[in-house]
Amino acid sequence: MSLVVQKYGGSSVADADAIKRVARRVAETHRAGNQVVVAVSAMGDTTDDLIDLSRKVSGSEHPREMDILLTAGERISMSLLAMAVRDLGVGAQSFTGPQAGVITTGAHGRARIIDVAPGRLRATLDAGEVAIVAGFQGLNQETQDVQTLGRGGSDTTAVALAAALGADVCEIYTDVDGVFSADPRIVPSARKLAHITYEEMLDMAASGAKVLMPRCVEYARRFNVPIHVRSSFSGLEGTWVVGETEGDTMEDPIIAGVAHDRSEAKITVIGVPDVPGSAARLFEAVAHADVNIDMIVQNVSAVATGVTDISFTLPMASVAEARAAIEADRPLIGYTELVSDDAIGKISLIGAGMRSNSGVSARFFAALRDAGVNIEMISTSDIRISVVTRAESVDTAVRAVHTAFGLDSLQGEAIIYGGSGR
Amino acid sequence: MSLVVQKYGGSSVADADAIKRVARRVAETHRAGNQVVVAVSAMGDTTDDLIDLSRKVSGSEHPREMDILLTAGERISMSLLAMAVRDLGVGAQSFTGPQAGVITTGAHGRARIIDVAPGRLRATLDAGEVAIVAGFQGLNQETQDVQTLGRGGSDTTAVALAAALGADVCEIYTDVDGVFSADPRIVPSARKLAHITYEEMLDMAASGAKVLMPRCVEYARRFNVPIHVRSSFSGLEGTWVVGETEGDTMEDPIIAGVAHDRSEAKITVIGVPDVPGSAARLFEAVAHADVNIDMIVQNVSAVATGVTDISFTLPMASVAEARAAIEADRPLIGYTELVSDDAIGKISLIGAGMRSNSGVSARFFAALRDAGVNIEMISTSDIRISVVTRAESVDTAVRAVHTAFGLDSLQGEAIIYGGSGR
Repeated sequence: MSLVVQKYGGSSVADADAIKRVARRVAETHRAGNQVVVAVSAMGDTTDDLIDLSRKVSGSEHPREMDILLTAGERISMSLLAMAVRDLGVGAQSFTGPQAGVITTGAHGRARIIDVAPGRLRATLDAGEVAIVAGFQGLNQETQDVQTLGRGGSDTTAVALAAALGADVCEIYTDVDGVFSADPRIVPSARKLAHITYEEMLDMAASGAKVLMPRCVEYARRFNVPIHVRSSFSGLEGTWVVGETEGDTMEDPIIAGVAHDRSEAKITVIGVPDVPGSAARLFEAVAHADVNIDMIVQNVSAVATGVTDISFTLPMASVAEARAAIEADRPLIGYTELVSDDAIGKISLIGAGMRSNSGVSARFFAALRDAGVNIEMISTSDIRISVVTRAESVDTAVRAVHTAFGLDSLQGEAIIYGGSGR
Repeated sequence: MSLVVQKYGGSSVADADAIKRVARRVAETHRAGNQVVVAVSAMGDTTDDLIDLSRKVSGSEHPREMDILLTAGERISMSLLAMAVRDLGVGAQSFTGPQAGVITTGAHGRARIIDVAPGRLRATLDAGEVAIVAGFQGLNQETQDVQTLGRGGSDTTAVALAAALGADVCEIYTDVDGVFSADPRIVPSARKLAHITYEEMLDMAASGAKVLMPRCVEYARRFNVPIHVRSSFSGLEGTWVVGETEGDTMEDPIIAGVAHDRSEAKITVIGVPDVPGSAARLFEAVAHADVNIDMIVQNVSAVATGVTDISFTLPMASVAEARAAIEADRPLIGYTELVSDDAIGKISLIGAGMRSNSGVSARFFAALRDAGVNIEMISTSDIRISVVTRAESVDTAVRAVHTAFGLDSLQGEAIIYGGSGR
């Protein structure tokens, strides 16, 4: 008997029929002899509707009350799903995050799970019933208040439940068939990956692949929870996100995929004194504004002038705050001009195999050159190369790189499946 | 400094503007130097909408899950109201029934409050903040599940909070100006009562006056909580529901008002053997079907036949169940025919003064006779006379009785305010 945690997102439970469809899958999994725990998001647009309603009532921030408000969404979907499962003759009970023992800490609206006390869920499973748990929420034990986890929270709930219960798999049901070697809307020949490592998935997610949020993958890696990303519509085998792939290392792919991201902007600070500490002052100012930055490039200083330019990328939504913070500290930083640019895109090539395979960078840059794509910034890790380009070059760049690494599904497998040397 | 509990129903918080209006009243009450606890219902039609949604998902009964579903409604209204109060510069926090310490027992969907542990509310008040509590719900400590209280539950929540906190008053805000001597839609000259005793209010409520539910009045009487029923729109002084009126008993009204009820039906069981135990068998059958009955009349037995007829009234919605139960036990009861009648109405005259004033019944029946209203059943208590008539006679009967007892607001007060003799 396996213990399976399943997570269904808002689009999988968008209406009464969708809830009944999910219920059939839950009941089938239970009838197949598994113990089943389900983490569920709010139905369709419920969360957005509640946010809209709150804006009609108040123009201010009320984080504690907003979390209470938003958690009504999962309360509705989880109880309805439990009813639908019970109608199929399978015992089921729904539990809020606090009832399920999900303990959180941190700020309202973006809390973190610090522990799961799964006693009540375990008792439900032991009684032969399905436990249906509200995703996206938990109890802050200090304040005894409910908190929400922020974006991707329901996936994280599912992984945390799987970890706490020692589940055999955490199935994340979504509206796509799995993790692809590139966005199929840009690259129609993109292939579904049979498996991908936690590290690759983390870099894919951080580079713009939206199928999983980095925090959920990070949690899974920490507790070694196998994730199976699959479609709630097709029933096909999806993509397994796991630790280092076992078995024949000859079959490890060098490259997992190509990710892209058009949600970032670039800020360039011109004429920064090229003395120790000036970059530190700049990024302290940005950090105090609670802005997350991604790539950073500092130009080679012109010796004659003694000043340099610093560029960095950040979420488009944070540009105004970052600019304000930098301008406020202008006397301290001492720059001459501040420029921001929303029209950028980022393309990233990800693959654990590039650790031990030379020539990956060369092939990557050659592909972009041949496609006529101009590179504005470069950043690399041991399993990733990322470049910033003009936003309008992103599609061309993704297709060119995808083809150059033999990822198109009609091409041979020679380049993808090379010896990794590990 | 007074401690005021205020209760706002669904129509008082139907939309964002209504919530902001309620927030202003809450903030005013707080600014006037009072400690304020608010019990709030779900917005407008939310509860009905959630019930409709559940019916799309499931045709079966799932009491535990239904309670989880429905409590999402108060979660939304309470958090929005807290935001709106905070926007007015008054500290406020919202609490679910379980968080507020409301402890329930009994069946899902119609649980009863058995205790309130007001520690968290008291701390909120001590911190100078307003506590906003979800009505209609509480925690069953044995199962650790949320339960709803059924109809009128939010009023009962408010009274229970007032009792637990030793509040000076429990203000029930509604869409009418208070308790009237009759339904103003039938009797335009009906007067708003300045005060009414718990007992009178209990009988008014049990006789069809919809402004308060009997269970809430019963709770208030038990803990001697003064209730002030008033309009959430007008700001006028409403009706005080209190214990025995203090002061000059010369001013106690004999009659509080005339209530009517068109929601009942009558079942007549014909040809029941007139032997000991036959009525008991009949009503045991009905009780096992969980049907509440109201009035009972047994005809004088015709000595020659040795059989009698028994009539009783019950909620219209329970007729089918009651009939089925009686038919199932027909061999045991041994009747000849079973007849039900939906077209009845009940008119009740209520007043604590009738205990010590003779002639009330005579005046009541004379008024009905003069109005040409035929009486089918009669039932009395020490402070109430009720009759069953044809449904179409209800309006005529209510007006005739209201006038006969001098309750019309343009008449003198001579008859209403008589010496009570107590």
